[in-house]
Amino acid sequence: MEYVTIKWLGRKPKLVNPILIEGLPGIGNVGKLAVEHLIDSIGAKKFAELYCKDFPPQVFINPDGTIELVKNEFYYWKAKKKEQRDLILLTGDYQGLSSQGQYELVEKILDLAEQFGVKEIFTLGGYGLGHEVDKPSVLCATTDKDLVKTMKKYGAVFRKNEPGGGIVGASGLLLGLGRLRDIKGVCFMGETPGYLVDPKSAKEVLKVLMRATNLEVDLTALEDKAKEIEQIAQQLRDIEAQAMEKPEDLKYIG
Amino acid sequence: MEYVTIKWLGRKPKLVNPILIEGLPGIGNVGKLAVEHLIDSIGAKKFAELYCKDFPPQVFINPDGTIELVKNEFYYWKAKKKEQRDLILLTGDYQGLSSQGQYELVEKILDLAEQFGVKEIFTLGGYGLGHEVDKPSVLCATTDKDLVKTMKKYGAVFRKNEPGGGIVGASGLLLGLGRLRDIKGVCFMGETPGYLVDPKSAKEVLKVLMRATNLEVDLTALEDKAKEIEQIAQQLRDIEAQAMEKPEDLKYIG
Amino acid sequence: MEYVTIKWLGRKPKLVNPILIEGLPGIGNVGKLAVEHLIDSIGAKKFAELYCKDFPPQVFINPDGTIELVKNEFYYWKAKKKEQRDLILLTGDYQGLSSQGQYELVEKILDLAEQFGVKEIFTLGGYGLGHEVDKPSVLCATTDKDLVKTMKKYGAVFRKNEPGGGIVGASGLLLGLGRLRDIKGVCFMGETPGYLVDPKSAKEVLKVLMRATNLEVDLTALEDKAKEIEQIAQQLRDIEAQAMEKPEDLKYIG
Amino acid sequence: MEYVTIKWLGRKPKLVNPILIEGLPGIGNVGKLAVEHLIDSIGAKKFAELYCKDFPPQVFINPDGTIELVKNEFYYWKAKKKEQRDLILLTGDYQGLSSQGQYELVEKILDLAEQFGVKEIFTLGGYGLGHEVDKPSVLCATTDKDLVKTMKKYGAVFRKNEPGGGIVGASGLLLGLGRLRDIKGVCFMGETPGYLVDPKSAKEVLKVLMRATNLEVDLTALEDKAKEIEQIAQQLRDIEAQAMEKPEDLKYIG
Repeated sequence: MEYVTIKWLGRKPKLVNPILIEGLPGIGNVGKLAVEHLIDSIGAKKFAELYCKDFPPQVFINPDGTIELVKNEFYYWKAKKKEQRDLILLTGDYQGLSSQGQYELVEKILDLAEQFGVKEIFTLGGYGLGHEVDKPSVLCATTDKDLVKTMKKYGAVFRKNEPGGGIVGASGLLLGLGRLRDIKGVCFMGETPGYLVDPKSAKEVLKVLMRATNLEVDLTALEDKAKEIEQIAQQLRDIEAQAMEKPEDLKYIG
Repeated sequence: MEYVTIKWLGRKPKLVNPILIEGLPGIGNVGKLAVEHLIDSIGAKKFAELYCKDFPPQVFINPDGTIELVKNEFYYWKAKKKEQRDLILLTGDYQGLSSQGQYELVEKILDLAEQFGVKEIFTLGGYGLGHEVDKPSVLCATTDKDLVKTMKKYGAVFRKNEPGGGIVGASGLLLGLGRLRDIKGVCFMGETPGYLVDPKSAKEVLKVLMRATNLEVDLTALEDKAKEIEQIAQQLRDIEAQAMEKPEDLKYIG
Repeated sequence: MEYVTIKWLGRKPKLVNPILIEGLPGIGNVGKLAVEHLIDSIGAKKFAELYCKDFPPQVFINPDGTIELVKNEFYYWKAKKKEQRDLILLTGDYQGLSSQGQYELVEKILDLAEQFGVKEIFTLGGYGLGHEVDKPSVLCATTDKDLVKTMKKYGAVFRKNEPGGGIVGASGLLLGLGRLRDIKGVCFMGETPGYLVDPKSAKEVLKVLMRATNLEVDLTALEDKAKEIEQIAQQLRDIEAQAMEKPEDLKYIG
Repeated sequence: MEYVTIKWLGRKPKLVNPILIEGLPGIGNVGKLAVEHLIDSIGAKKFAELYCKDFPPQVFINPDGTIELVKNEFYYWKAKKKEQRDLILLTGDYQGLSSQGQYELVEKILDLAEQFGVKEIFTLGGYGLGHEVDKPSVLCATTDKDLVKTMKKYGAVFRKNEPGGGIVGASGLLLGLGRLRDIKGVCFMGETPGYLVDPKSAKEVLKVLMRATNLEVDLTALEDKAKEIEQIAQQLRDIEAQAMEKPEDLKYIG
């Protein structure tokens, strides 16, 4: 096994001028939720798995009792309409643990993408606010000035000096290292409190992505998940509020 | 010295279709205790040592004043009966310290196993509960659906979503990386509080392994160790209970 | 991409016997502030960027919404007067994160410097005092005894056993690894409290450097920045003083 | 520069059947103090320096204002009497920072030693007790049973299961990795509280080493240093005792 290993599942798909869309674990798991929902909705097919020595030395256990080595996964989808494009979708269990591992991993992902002629990348992630947000905006950064204009039309938001810390991890590196290969890139970051997984933010990210790629995706499942999470968040707020209100009583109980 | 180095002790043994059984240090040292007991009971012979630059830079001191570089050890045992199988047994002082080191190490172990034609692996470990357990179950995960059925017959337990965090370390990776080489694998995890070394849990793991491999092992020595540990655990509980009972008195003393 | 990658921007400049001047992030950001100010003042031109797998996996976002992969940058400047020398100037976002990364990075920087025939290096940094300093001295260390004498003439200060911990990071390694290649080197360290970025200290460092290199630099912009920082520092001191003075009152409020 | 680089100073010395004696930084700096004193006393000459990318990225500053890249140093000494042996002595600023770095470093040291035909190694270090010790014993561990007997005659002490944690770092690895090359080795560990540098312990280590190697070393300078450290230790004990005795008074002062 190489430092980063690609395992092909069957024949390599034949794709025409595909776009790469990435959503790996991160703040609020926004990117991963968005890409996983996209894969399910459009019925994309897995064609490759990626293993890496910079992932944790770990297997997960499937419901049927069999194990899965931790990995990233590549799916493809072929355009159904003239205004659509073929897609490669990337999600997975982990990003690299170390700085060097992240660079190695993204380089390998870009190698694979170039094999299929990828010239454009969308990366999806979250932008952690540290507080609740009613309607999450979708912040954006790109490799090209022209793309800034285009993405604004699709509803993406550009705020000077935000995120102040830039973009850390695969979503940023795919753009940064991609540009060194003349690949154009766009990163969508859904605002999120960042405390819990955030399907509401993922939904907003997908809405902008749908406009940018002419995809049609049913967002109902994501809305249902968002409602579940909202209930959990409300319960946590209630517990916290009770704890704040009754310090006196707690003493008597104690 | 390579990153991982194998030192052969004399001639390589000739083995027929052997099974690899691994038990390295981990939670409750369950796997290590089980394999060490097995080696002693069946009289397995050491044939190779493994050194690794990802182990701590350390030597241990033998009772006679000589030193031992920290290492893993391979033993073999030849089947005595028709229904038994030749065995390679793996134990040692440490697992790799880093993620990458763990991957490198397990790859080298699999290389060695393949030299002897290994097609099946049993890995042994503990499943940390964080609380006392009267009769430890032996949880299981496998590389194949068929093996799930078989292992259930031998008394192994499959609980959906347990362990939730999957299997971390050599016991997991040997299965995950082994499957990429078409090697079948089974992991037995003995339930354990995880506070102390746990011969009781190791005994339960060995019982299931014995059924799965038609081995006959005298478990008396392990039972004796379990009684010793139980006494120590009881003493610790007594000390803790005393400390909890008398906060008032402590104030007067203080 | 290599572990350390140089990206040339257009043709390599033709330089005569150039000096390398380094100022990367560090205590009080003294070196980085000084070199950035120097680049702006003399109108040096960027000719290369350096990427490294030991930098954080990160992109920054420009005010126009486009991304920048984290990097170091090389600028050049051609001497205007007979008594001046051609310059290569090095600054950037980060130093290497790991020990090994720092060594690799500095080796690559020295490789580039040797391509241009560099035989002398000035490295700029801060010397953290942990307390306020009215007029920061500029401490110095060199690769050669002769340079000690020369630098004293320019106002650099040598204090026995200071800094006691030596010089950590690129400013030290460029001298240490440079000497192994027979490159002469001088490190100027401006005294700084080390709490905030410190343009006042950077100004003192530049003053000494100007004398050592016959450069003429307008320091006004740096003085203005120093005044801003002094105001912020004063505000912080006021807040701290208030907090110290009124512990009683705080109790009533609480 | 390689990961580990040897810089030869002039011609390689011609040595007959030399012994390697190592004393690098560690607990109480016992080994380093002992070897440095030995180098001074017998007038050994430096013939090589070793640099390593696993050392901190750091230079130290000499009293004359020049810098020194952090390093290890090799000295040699040619036997004066028939019953003596040629020596290679190793000391330095640091051991490797990482596990892998320690292995790489020790392998390179053994490579150098084998170039000179080294077949025996003495490594010197401290054994931290965590409490004061009146007359420090010198514990010992060896690569060979025969050496255990011999070293006992010279006053070295073997205590079963001590040190319980084995020997960590270069002093242990030189023996462990050396044995894989059929090099015999002995480690002397001077008992030390471990709080401060400990010349008293270093002196005891040297006494045993002198008997084992027929060296004659004047220990006066080490005894003087030991008295200085004893005074400092006494002052620290006084301060601690005062702090313990007068909690009441301290309140009035506060």
